[in-house]
Amino acid sequence: MSAAAGFDRVALVGIGLINGSLARDMKRQGMAGEIVAASRRRETLDTALGLGLCDRATTDPAEAVRGADLVVIGTPVRAAGEVARAIAPGLSPEAVVTDVGSVKGAVVEAVLPELSHPGRFVAGHPVAGTEHSGPAAAIEHLFRHRWTILTPTEASDEDAIATVRGLWETVGSRVEVMTPEHHDQVLAMTSHLPHLIAFSIVGTVDDLEGHLRQEVFKFAAGGFTDFTRIAASDPTMWRDVFLSNKDAVLEGLGRFTEDLIALQRQIRWDDGDALFDLFTKTRAIRRGIVEAGQAYGRRAVIDDEPAVKDQTAP
Amino acid sequence: MSAAAGFDRVALVGIGLINGSLARDMKRQGMAGEIVAASRRRETLDTALGLGLCDRATTDPAEAVRGADLVVIGTPVRAAGEVARAIAPGLSPEAVVTDVGSVKGAVVEAVLPELSHPGRFVAGHPVAGTEHSGPAAAIEHLFRHRWTILTPTEASDEDAIATVRGLWETVGSRVEVMTPEHHDQVLAMTSHLPHLIAFSIVGTVDDLEGHLRQEVFKFAAGGFTDFTRIAASDPTMWRDVFLSNKDAVLEGLGRFTEDLIALQRQIRWDDGDALFDLFTKTRAIRRGIVEAGQAYGRRAVIDDEPAVKDQTAP
Repeated sequence: MSAAAGFDRVALVGIGLINGSLARDMKRQGMAGEIVAASRRRETLDTALGLGLCDRATTDPAEAVRGADLVVIGTPVRAAGEVARAIAPGLSPEAVVTDVGSVKGAVVEAVLPELSHPGRFVAGHPVAGTEHSGPAAAIEHLFRHRWTILTPTEASDEDAIATVRGLWETVGSRVEVMTPEHHDQVLAMTSHLPHLIAFSIVGTVDDLEGHLRQEVFKFAAGGFTDFTRIAASDPTMWRDVFLSNKDAVLEGLGRFTEDLIALQRQIRWDDGDALFDLFTKTRAIRRGIVEAGQAYGRRAVIDDEPAVKDQTAP
Repeated sequence: MSAAAGFDRVALVGIGLINGSLARDMKRQGMAGEIVAASRRRETLDTALGLGLCDRATTDPAEAVRGADLVVIGTPVRAAGEVARAIAPGLSPEAVVTDVGSVKGAVVEAVLPELSHPGRFVAGHPVAGTEHSGPAAAIEHLFRHRWTILTPTEASDEDAIATVRGLWETVGSRVEVMTPEHHDQVLAMTSHLPHLIAFSIVGTVDDLEGHLRQEVFKFAAGGFTDFTRIAASDPTMWRDVFLSNKDAVLEGLGRFTEDLIALQRQIRWDDGDALFDLFTKTRAIRRGIVEAGQAYGRRAVIDDEPAVKDQTAP
């Protein structure tokens, strides 16, 4: 654990759920002398100011980062390169720059060439969130007990890595370091693919014929209701994730489809033993995850105790 | 709403999550003079007796139903026919018989021919549950604010239908009547298919190569963690559901696979607009469900207030 992080001026470029929640924690913990928010939309900045997420706000990214010792890019991932280009003229040489995007390879590739001091950039991904978005969705303690993955490059300065690590540890996150490529492989399976599947099946149900469709929504049971929550996540963010992590997502999707077709065949041919064996295995996996303390819901993040589980209805 | 249900003797054949939770509510509300539980396994009965879910317990189904005015079959659905055959010798002519299975067509087909008084049988499905199973998983208020779907046949006596309706309404459930076939179509989409997908993807991840597999479980994020919970549901119950509702599940799976492949193609060809449109649509669907009051989690079932949502991490 590093020393608690403190900054004279923090610039948050993009002020949605993640950067907004980070702002709440930094405010509460007195981690920043001043927080400056930037957004393309004046309305977003007014909301952020109204909620006290920042001290100043501007639609000019270069202006926002001027004099900042920490810059956090919190936009959809496909905008990261453009943001880097926009802030470059305002950046101090010693300012540490990081981001919070869910894809790391494409972000590192887009951002590095835009910066005069690429050693000061350390890409990061706090693996936390909700299905809500925008500054009004920001909550305290969002990162507590969650992982943040940092993906520095060989060019990254050691002290910049330590600074970003300290930022996330101070707001309660556990920090792990890996390569951007490895991050994207892991997250493709653990997050991107499940979201893709949820978006897909909710779309499938919505396409059902009128009466059946109505009834499916009326009797929406545990399994499907969980999927609709996941499929309520921010459209722009997720479009960018799938297009920016295309190779790993398509690879995972290929594996999933093969397995689903095998399962389909087992149902068609009444292979009850194969079904039972798979379901027994997946039940044991859940036990392992619960024991590993990963299966925490929102309440756990806030209250530091195991979450109330949603029900899955049969 | 019918009058509150009351019974002299209730026989619960199978005493797992659903029948056990029903027993808790009946006990609390004084709905039954005596509750008799039957199970093939002595150990299950000892647990049920120890938890006070029943007053008497027996491994003989015919003995359990003797003198009962209500019989609730709560076994995995493929055992329902066998159970009906086993209880037939002990049933009073006027006893009302129902079940709680997640598939209705196959259950009705298997049970009716075994009963001397088929007009007394009214199949039912309380659309409620958790990923846990067995009598120790039984909880109070499981059915409150949830739907119970009844699927009587043309042979069903009106007073038997009213009795089963009264049973579920008394424990707080909303009751809807439809045909077994329609029930199975609706539930295939809203519950069976989501469970199948969750079982499948958790299996896919478990098959990953060693290091990547470990990391996926370590960094398991919101989307995937939700899936592991759904995929922790009872293996025997779900094997039976998929095999007993094969046609509707395969039909739903076919639609889902087509849509997923279309989505795969959109990602491969960078069709960001199509992705954005789908995700915008699915987000709106969630809003509709939340507004319709369907998106309640466990806390809502117990506390009658909106659930704390799990987080879905990006």
